[in-house]
Formats: sequence, structure tokens, C-alpha cells
Amino acid sequence: MRHSGGYAASYGAGELDKLVEQRFNEIFEHEVSVFFVATGTAANSLAIAAEARPGGIALCHTGAHVIEDECGAPELYSGCRLAPVGGKQGKIDPDQLRQAFGQFIPGFVHHGRPTMVTITQANESGCVYSLDEIAEIRAITSENKVALHMDGARFANALASLDISPAEMTWKTGVDYLSFGGTKNGCWCAEALVCFDPAKAEEIHFLRKRAGQLFSKSRFIAAQFEAYLRDDLWLELARHSNEMARQLAEKISLYNDLSIPWQPQANEVFVVMEVERAKRLQARGAWFFDFPIPPAHRNLVGEGQNLYRFVTSFSTTSEDIGNFSKLLKD
Amino acid sequence: MRHSGGYAASYGAGELDKLVEQRFNEIFEHEVSVFFVATGTAANSLAIAAEARPGGIALCHTGAHVIEDECGAPELYSGCRLAPVGGKQGKIDPDQLRQAFGQFIPGFVHHGRPTMVTITQANESGCVYSLDEIAEIRAITSENKVALHMDGARFANALASLDISPAEMTWKTGVDYLSFGGTKNGCWCAEALVCFDPAKAEEIHFLRKRAGQLFSKSRFIAAQFEAYLRDDLWLELARHSNEMARQLAEKISLYNDLSIPWQPQANEVFVVMEVERAKRLQARGAWFFDFPIPPAHRNLVGEGQNLYRFVTSFSTTSEDIGNFSKLLKD
Amino acid sequence: MRHSGGYAASYGAGELDKLVEQRFNEIFEHEVSVFFVATGTAANSLAIAAEARPGGIALCHTGAHVIEDECGAPELYSGCRLAPVGGKQGKIDPDQLRQAFGQFIPGFVHHGRPTMVTITQANESGCVYSLDEIAEIRAITSENKVALHMDGARFANALASLDISPAEMTWKTGVDYLSFGGTKNGCWCAEALVCFDPAKAEEIHFLRKRAGQLFSKSRFIAAQFEAYLRDDLWLELARHSNEMARQLAEKISLYNDLSIPWQPQANEVFVVMEVERAKRLQARGAWFFDFPIPPAHRNLVGEGQNLYRFVTSFSTTSEDIGNFSKLLKD
Amino acid sequence: MRHSGGYAASYGAGELDKLVEQRFNEIFEHEVSVFFVATGTAANSLAIAAEARPGGIALCHTGAHVIEDECGAPELYSGCRLAPVGGKQGKIDPDQLRQAFGQFIPGFVHHGRPTMVTITQANESGCVYSLDEIAEIRAITSENKVALHMDGARFANALASLDISPAEMTWKTGVDYLSFGGTKNGCWCAEALVCFDPAKAEEIHFLRKRAGQLFSKSRFIAAQFEAYLRDDLWLELARHSNEMARQLAEKISLYNDLSIPWQPQANEVFVVMEVERAKRLQARGAWFFDFPIPPAHRNLVGEGQNLYRFVTSFSTTSEDIGNFSKLLKD
Repeated sequence: MRHSGGYAASYGAGELDKLVEQRFNEIFEHEVSVFFVATGTAANSLAIAAEARPGGIALCHTGAHVIEDECGAPELYSGCRLAPVGGKQGKIDPDQLRQAFGQFIPGFVHHGRPTMVTITQANESGCVYSLDEIAEIRAITSENKVALHMDGARFANALASLDISPAEMTWKTGVDYLSFGGTKNGCWCAEALVCFDPAKAEEIHFLRKRAGQLFSKSRFIAAQFEAYLRDDLWLELARHSNEMARQLAEKISLYNDLSIPWQPQANEVFVVMEVERAKRLQARGAWFFDFPIPPAHRNLVGEGQNLYRFVTSFSTTSEDIGNFSKLLKD
Repeated sequence: MRHSGGYAASYGAGELDKLVEQRFNEIFEHEVSVFFVATGTAANSLAIAAEARPGGIALCHTGAHVIEDECGAPELYSGCRLAPVGGKQGKIDPDQLRQAFGQFIPGFVHHGRPTMVTITQANESGCVYSLDEIAEIRAITSENKVALHMDGARFANALASLDISPAEMTWKTGVDYLSFGGTKNGCWCAEALVCFDPAKAEEIHFLRKRAGQLFSKSRFIAAQFEAYLRDDLWLELARHSNEMARQLAEKISLYNDLSIPWQPQANEVFVVMEVERAKRLQARGAWFFDFPIPPAHRNLVGEGQNLYRFVTSFSTTSEDIGNFSKLLKD
Repeated sequence: MRHSGGYAASYGAGELDKLVEQRFNEIFEHEVSVFFVATGTAANSLAIAAEARPGGIALCHTGAHVIEDECGAPELYSGCRLAPVGGKQGKIDPDQLRQAFGQFIPGFVHHGRPTMVTITQANESGCVYSLDEIAEIRAITSENKVALHMDGARFANALASLDISPAEMTWKTGVDYLSFGGTKNGCWCAEALVCFDPAKAEEIHFLRKRAGQLFSKSRFIAAQFEAYLRDDLWLELARHSNEMARQLAEKISLYNDLSIPWQPQANEVFVVMEVERAKRLQARGAWFFDFPIPPAHRNLVGEGQNLYRFVTSFSTTSEDIGNFSKLLKD
Repeated sequence: MRHSGGYAASYGAGELDKLVEQRFNEIFEHEVSVFFVATGTAANSLAIAAEARPGGIALCHTGAHVIEDECGAPELYSGCRLAPVGGKQGKIDPDQLRQAFGQFIPGFVHHGRPTMVTITQANESGCVYSLDEIAEIRAITSENKVALHMDGARFANALASLDISPAEMTWKTGVDYLSFGGTKNGCWCAEALVCFDPAKAEEIHFLRKRAGQLFSKSRFIAAQFEAYLRDDLWLELARHSNEMARQLAEKISLYNDLSIPWQPQANEVFVVMEVERAKRLQARGAWFFDFPIPPAHRNLVGEGQNLYRFVTSFSTTSEDIGNFSKLLKD
């Protein structure tokens, strides 16, 4: 509300935009280029496009949002292919990643060529890569001379989970691009691509405009981030939703007919449940969905069962958890 | 503010979204499909993509926003080429349009094939196509079996200018797609593609998602349109900015060394002025820019002069006009 | 040589082109549309493009040429994604295919939507789908309302192997598009896309031209096919190369330290061999390469071993086989 | 025929390929990278793609083959837009080119950015840029830091016309890429992209493969060029077809009701003629077509008249000219 009146320069040239960009520099302890966009899909797709080359291939987890939930946007923006790499709990397995790279021969045009590895932090399975795990993947990308992108639609949740700094999670561990998500943590359509090498900014400016993602009234995203990043609000919100997930998992673990295949590390709890039981819960007003069972975890789900995802957020309350717990009991 | 709390279904499935879609049906007196997007560039590009075919060509005015100011977004979304057609005052000249169509031979693959004509209403020169002019273009597109798109970044201004209904301006005159702009008339990043043939909606849903333009928190655009369209607020705002342009033109016409090459029909006033005079005005705080001289109007601008664009808006006041008028006098 | 002099209409409009198109109708016992192109990659990519829709996905085997060896050409031509499906011996496993289709929900834009299944006949592992196997895949594609494409870079070898007619192998079993390869069986750069639904021809004409694959001197491909298809020359050549592969496999099977993981069904023999033994053979002049081990067959190859591919052709002689056999013995 | 038997390495790695590449170095007196492709459209499109950047724009003449006759292939390969620039006789007018560049502001993403100027030599109007004219365009491209491409579908005719060396026509005057055409001058589908900066070769290799333009049996194009370039055969053929055009123009100029709006400089003669006269000639067996009247020359063609193009070739004979002359007289 504070920033909605008066005049300001458009297309990101306004004072508030500049101020927020500066704020990103401080938070990341690094000079970064920040590109506001409308959706997480756009941020991810821009990142892949920023490193695109003809015949390019971006390697991602088999269940990554970029390959499963973006309807070809990364390919449209970049012209690259996405190649899936397996791994448990939504994390790329380093051995499988090495094997994937092993298929490529420099200069051998038939196979195309890798240009990027993209990881999700926290990921689609509600898990978080440790710094060591990121470093191991970074070592592989360095050896193969490709960039590393982090899809941070739940970046704040991952930071809260590992209790480390934004710098440690990103450029200090070798991340080149970060999709910085605000939407899932309380903003409205405020997403950004953060590029840790400002020399690449000019190219991304053209890529963003070409994608129809350059806002004239850019300040309305800036205004959101201004509030979001002030006084660590973003981290506080993330800590809260993580805590809600922890409480939820605790409640669920009390029931023998429900199993939690891996402990939540952020704001998502995965549960294996009888389909019938899930339907009864949903009929009584619980709002959750089944989730595609990752190939690496097919053994966890028996006949008549399914895998369900429960997501907590900045607005989930202990009371909500209590109400769901009561439903479970009944 | 009213709609910012609580829970709602995401990705356009919420009640507010449905309500606003219904509101569009009423306003256009027609069942329409509405697609919220982040930018006018996205709306235009989606429209062109909705009719795209391999080798497709969208015909537009030489100075149209799609070809001059969207950095290739229409081509990225659609895979089509944009072909410029001349005409005075930012309007496609029907004879030149017929000539352009005359170059294409059905089934002759070398030249590609036209798929769409796109016109801007009100256009980049601040002018408005009359209903007869739209009908003449529609006749040409019908004969050539291509769709007609209207870039309505300033749609409300055009309605206010012609004092006709949204239905008359669009489907009743044969418009197939409308980019419905809210941003320039008071919204924040609230733009929509309106498609008058709901049978094409499914395709556009995929196109929009593929472009990274599907909002999860779609209701925040819906909320803007809900207010924008209520009690004709949008038309009132447009009438105001048009009136401000009229007043501005009146003031400017008092000066012999300033010339208005064509009368403003919406919220933009174009002025031929000595470059030195413009610089002095700008130095004293007037904020306006020179504008690329359209090929069809090169004769209007003499040595040492330039063409300048003055834009009024929903927030321009008579006092602003008065202040500028004083500057001119000094 | 017969057709190289004199004048003829260009771009496929010549008499010889028309005559060869007619010949294709006869061979397939069906009215077909034939599109000459320069490479097999182009034929496959055109087929995928012919069924493309925004967010489209073509399902193929994990080791298919389209996904492994075409450097993104199918994606460039079509804008679609390729999604890999597993299966032994280079054949799509129907259960895995059903599972892959199961991930898609009609109208759910996030995941994209399948538009095609593409199979290779004879495939990259030298194996051939039986008619029953094709029919089973066709049943799945029909249920999911997507087209079926056959990459027939080795189509003649497959026909010779199964000893059935071109019609039985294709439209009678439900194939919609066939990449008809000539290059591997004696032609020079004579490849064609055969479409069994001539109503789709106009679109493909534009797609081909847009891909830079429309030859002005089209008759020089036509001339090759005219000879290739006359008196069953193409099938004779294929029978010969298949027979050479059979003889080669017979020789190889005499050696205990060499193993043939699956029997050749066309003109390729795959052999598991010690890397050192392979190097010695190559040093003595045998020309063959190692082959990426398909994920479904990783268990077949032990430590210090590799998988090698031996390809026979129309020009391989029994003497060649004998010479290689001698090398093996030494 | 000499090269059609025996074995050779595939995909351009064979001895003959290497030998022909070396031959190109000699002819151009420069180390060049040569990329064989199937069509002139492919060569042009590859060149534009080689310099492509997001938001990129290639400037060409309004009547250039790339924009008029390639059905969007340049855009597909490159993702760039083509922007037309006017000029008489099929040549880009330097003033209009400067004006076109003047519209672009470095870093201003809305307009996109120029990446290339492409000229045609000899061009679609049968005219030839002089070395000075090329140099003037090169000066403009250099100032604007974009590359210069020459569409040489009729390169040999231009060389023969100006009687200069391939080096003078290209890199010595600042040409960065040349589409080297063989098809129009006697080859069959033998076209090549010549890049004068071999550092860019790796990228183009991927671009070519991604476009489905990498031949396995590359030697069959190499074999054509081997003969074509030997003993200046290519220049001899071009000189012949130019001479035929000269003779044809001479004959035509004898008739008062036929007018030649500009003198042929290569192998094409343009004639303004009554439509009725043209129809009578065509009915008597003369094979020629009307040609879209370039905007810059609309004043040359009166009511009831049309512009016709007569093309001579390596295989045109003086007898052919004589026969046509007789037809004219009758």
C-alpha cells in the first residue's frame, strides 16, 4: 500500500526497484543481477535459457518441476532439452548424474551437449540437499563445464531447514542461478531470477522481455520484496511453515496405518495411505492430493494405497494441524 | 485488499476468477474465454500463437507494438513471422493490406501463409479505428480466411472515444481476439486475452502455461478486474484520461511553433517541436519522450524538429495540464 | 544417370516425382503422402511436428534415435518434448508406456500432453517389433488418442525380417506416419516421410519447407527411389544385409569369450566382449564401435567388458564375414 | 560416379570431404569452415542462426529470398526476426539501412537488437552489388557491430559478372558468412555455408545437426563440389549463363512493346510486358513466370502490364535464345 501511489520510472528503472536490487546484494553478500518475473516457471525457464546453446540439454531430477509441471516452458524459452536423472527423495543421485554426463562426447553433435544441471531446494519431495550434496553435484558440473541452477520456489524453507545463510546455500557452494520464489511463502506472483554473474545480465534482460515477462509497473513486485525481505520476515514465515510440517508429521506418525516414507525437511509431508482412508478424509473437508509416485520409491506403496502430499504454509496454524489430527482420529 | 486473505483454489479455479470471467461475458454480451496474463506483450503474443500454423504470418501496422516493442515475444510464442503493413496515423491502410494479401498464393509454401491481422485500438499514434474502418479490415481478413486480433492495451480509451459498447467494438464487428489491457488504465499488471470463440480455449490454456504466464494466485488479477469493471470504473478512468489529452492538445495548439499533426482521439497527443524547445521543457521537469517518426509521416517533421509523444492517464489532473501550459508559456 | 539430363518441373512437381509418389501408393496399397527429405533426422522430426500441439510430448524408447542422436531436431521442428520410456532390446515396454500415459490428465496443462508415440523398426538394438507388439502399442495410443509413428531408417530390414508386406507393417497395424529410410540400404540421402492420412499433407508441406528440406531438384531423390523400389530391389538388398548379420552372429557364437545378448533380427549384431579383445580387433582393421549400454541391459556387461555393435549392409559380402572370422580366430 | 563405390568415413569425416574443404580454403585464399547442407534455404538459415541472440533481428532487402521465399526457416533455425529494408534493383539502400539501425538503442530490450545484415549476390532482381556497395554496407554493419552475410545462391554468376576473385567478393570486403550455392549452377542439392571465422565452427556444427542437415553420406555432396570447383568449371558455367542472359536481353530490347527496366548483371532478365503478350508466349511453350513487382519499382509497370522474370542457366543454349526470339517475332 505504501508504494502504490505517485509516479515512478517504469520497467525496473524506478528507485524502489533499485533499492530492492541492492537489498538482494546484501542478502546474498554478493553482487547479483535480479530479474523479477511473474511465475516460478518463468524464473526457471529464464535460467535455462541464459545458458542455452543449440543442442543444449539441461539435466534435472526425474520428478523436477521443470520437467513435470511447466508444460514445456523451459524448452520454449531456451530451445534446450530437459533430460531426467534419477535419485531418491527428489534429489539427483550423483552417480546417475555422472553416468548421464558420461554419455556425452565433446563435439559429438548427435547427442547434443549438456549446458546446465538444475536442482530444486527444497525439492518436490519436501527434501533438502545438504551443502555437501550440493558441493558434490557442483563438482560434477564443474568437471563438465556446465552451470548449476537452483530452483528455489521453496528457497526460504530450505534456508530455514539447514539454518545457513543465502550465500552459503548458493554462490559459496557454486550455484550460478537461483529461482528465488516468493509466491509459496506469502507474496503474490513475486518471483525472481537471481544471477550470480552480473556479466550475464544483458542477455537475460533480452530473454525476459522476449518471454513477455518484463513488467512496466515493476515496482509492485519490488514493493512486495521490500516487505518480504525486511527484518527477515521471509525466513520467519518459512520457519513457521517448516515447524507446521514437523508438527503434522508428528501427528501422522501416531497412526499405524499411515506411513511417512521420509521425514519432512521443509514444509511438505508425504504419506502412504489406503486410498479409501484418504477419500474419507477428503470427504470430511481435508484438502490434499495424491502425488505421482517417484520411480525410485515405487516399492513403498502397496496395493490399494497411494502416496499423498500435505503442504503447510506461512498461514497454516497449529489449530489447523489439530483439526486435521482430530479428523484422523475419527 | 478485500480479497487478499483466506484460501482460494489456485490457477484460475477460484470463485473470484469464475465470477470475473462471468463479468467479462456480461460486458461483452457474449460467451468469452478470458486468460489473465502478466503483460500486454504476453496477451498479444498468446493471441498470435492461438492462430499459429507453420509458416504463419501475422500482418500488423509498421509501427505496431507487436513488431516494434515486444522483442520477438510474438514470434517466440507463436513461431510466426510479423509482416508490416503501412498506413497513416498508426492505422493499417486497407489498400496496402489487400496488396500484402495479394502476395500469397494458397498452398504455395515458399511465401508462408497469413494467419492473422492484428490492429491496435487505440493505437500507438493515439488514433482510433472507426467501426467502418474495422469492418473494412474484417472484410479483407474474412476473404482471406484469417483471424482478426485487436491489441487493446488502450481498449477503454477507444471505447470512451467512440462511445460504443465493448460488443460493438469487438465481436459484432468481427474481432476474434482482444488483448484487454488494464495496466495503462490503472491496474497493476492486470492484462487479459479475451477469445470470442470459447472452442479455442483449451489450446490457449496450454499456450499460456507453456509461456510461463499461468498464475497460481490468479485471484489477485481477478480481484483487480473485479474492481476495475465494477460500476464502469474502467470507462470513467478512460474518459478522464481522454479528456486530459483533449485539454492538453488545446493548450498546445495555442503555440505557433508547436504543431499537432493529427488530433488526439484517445489519451496521447503527438507534437512536432524544435528539439531545442523540447530539451528546455524537459530540463524544467516535463517528462516526455521523442517518438520514432512513422514512415508515412516523415514529411511532417522538418530540420531541427522532432516528433514528441505526450501521454495522459487516469491520474493526470487539470492542474498537471495547467502546469505544463505554464512551462510552455515561459 | 537416366534422369539427370533435360528439364523437369521443380519442387516435387515433376513427372518423375509424381510417378514415384504413385509407386509409394502401390507399395503401401494405400493412398499416401510422401515427403522427400535429406536425412532420417528430418523425416522423424517432421513426423513429430505434424502432430505437434503446444505442450506436446512424443513418447519414445530411452535409446531411440530421436532422443539420443538427433541433437534436438525433433524439438526444433515440433516444439514438443521427447519423453523416454524403457523396455528391453530397444523396444518400448507396453506396461511402462501405459504407466507413462497414466501420468497425464486431460486438460491439466502443467504436465503437457502426449501427442505421439514413436517406435523404431528395426530398432537401435537390431530388434524388430512383431505385428502383435505393434498392435499392442497401437491399442495404447488409440486409447490415449495420440498418433503412432514408425522410424523406419531400417524399414526394409524389418520387412525382410518379418517377411510381411509394407501395408501390414504400417497402416494395417495402425501406424500413422513412417520415416521411410533409403540411405542405410543403398541410397544417397534419399529419405522420405510417408503419411497415411493425405488430409494432413498440406500442413506437412509447410513444415518441410520451413525446415529447409524442400529440394528444388527433387527429382534426384525421386530417381533414386524409382530404382530402389523397382523389382523389389530394396527388399533384396535388405534380405542380403540381414543374411550377412545372421552369418556374422553364427561365427561370433563360436567363441566362448564373446556373447550375443540377443539374437539379431535385422542387420545389426550386438556383442559383449572384453575391451582388450575389441581393441586388438580394431587394431587389426576391423571397424566397429562400442555402443551405449541400454539401462535395461546393464547386467549383461561385466567388469572390463563393453557392448559392441556390428552393422552389416547391402554391400557386406560373405568374404567380409569370413575375413572377420579369421581375425577372431587369430 | 568416380566416388560412389567403396567405403568412406561418414558425417563429413571422409577423405574426400577433407579434400574439398581444403579446396575451399584455396579458392577463398583463407582458412574457412564449410558446412554442406541440402538447400540454399538451409545455408541462409544456418548463417542467421550462427549469429543469433535473443531478440535478434537480421536486416535484409524487402525482396530477399530469406524473407520472401523461405517460409520462416531462418526464424525457425535462429529464433530471430527478419526486418525488411528497401532499395532499388533488389539492393539494400545504404541510407535506409542506416535509418533502420537508427531505430535501435543499445540495451533497449523492447525493440530487440540487430545481429546481422544479409545481402544477396547476385540478387533476386538479377543485379550485383559492386565492391564499393558491399564496402559501404560493411561499414554500416561494422559501426553497428553486426555480422554481414552474403546469400550466394548465384555467387558464381556474381563473380563472373564482376570478374573478381572469391576472396575479393567476400572476406576482403568484410563478408563474414557466405551461402555458397551450387544447385542453380549445375549441382544437385549441393549447397554450403562458408564461415570465414573458423572459431565459430563448433557452434554451427551443432546448429546444422539440430536442423536435420547433417548428411551421413556427406561425400556425395563433396564429390559434386570436387568436380564443380575443379579447373574453374563453376566459373565457366556461370560465365555461360550470364552470356545467355546478355544475349536474351539484346533480343528483347529489339521490341518496343517490351521494356527491360534494368540491365541484367547476371543470369536473369526482367521484362515489363503486356499480360496478354506474355500469355500468348506461354501458350506457345515459353516457360517463364511473372514476378512480384518490388515496391521500389511499382512506377515501371503500367495498367495491363506485368513484370516477368527470365532465367538462363548453365544449360541454356544460344539456340534456346534464338527459339525464344522467333516466338517474340511471331
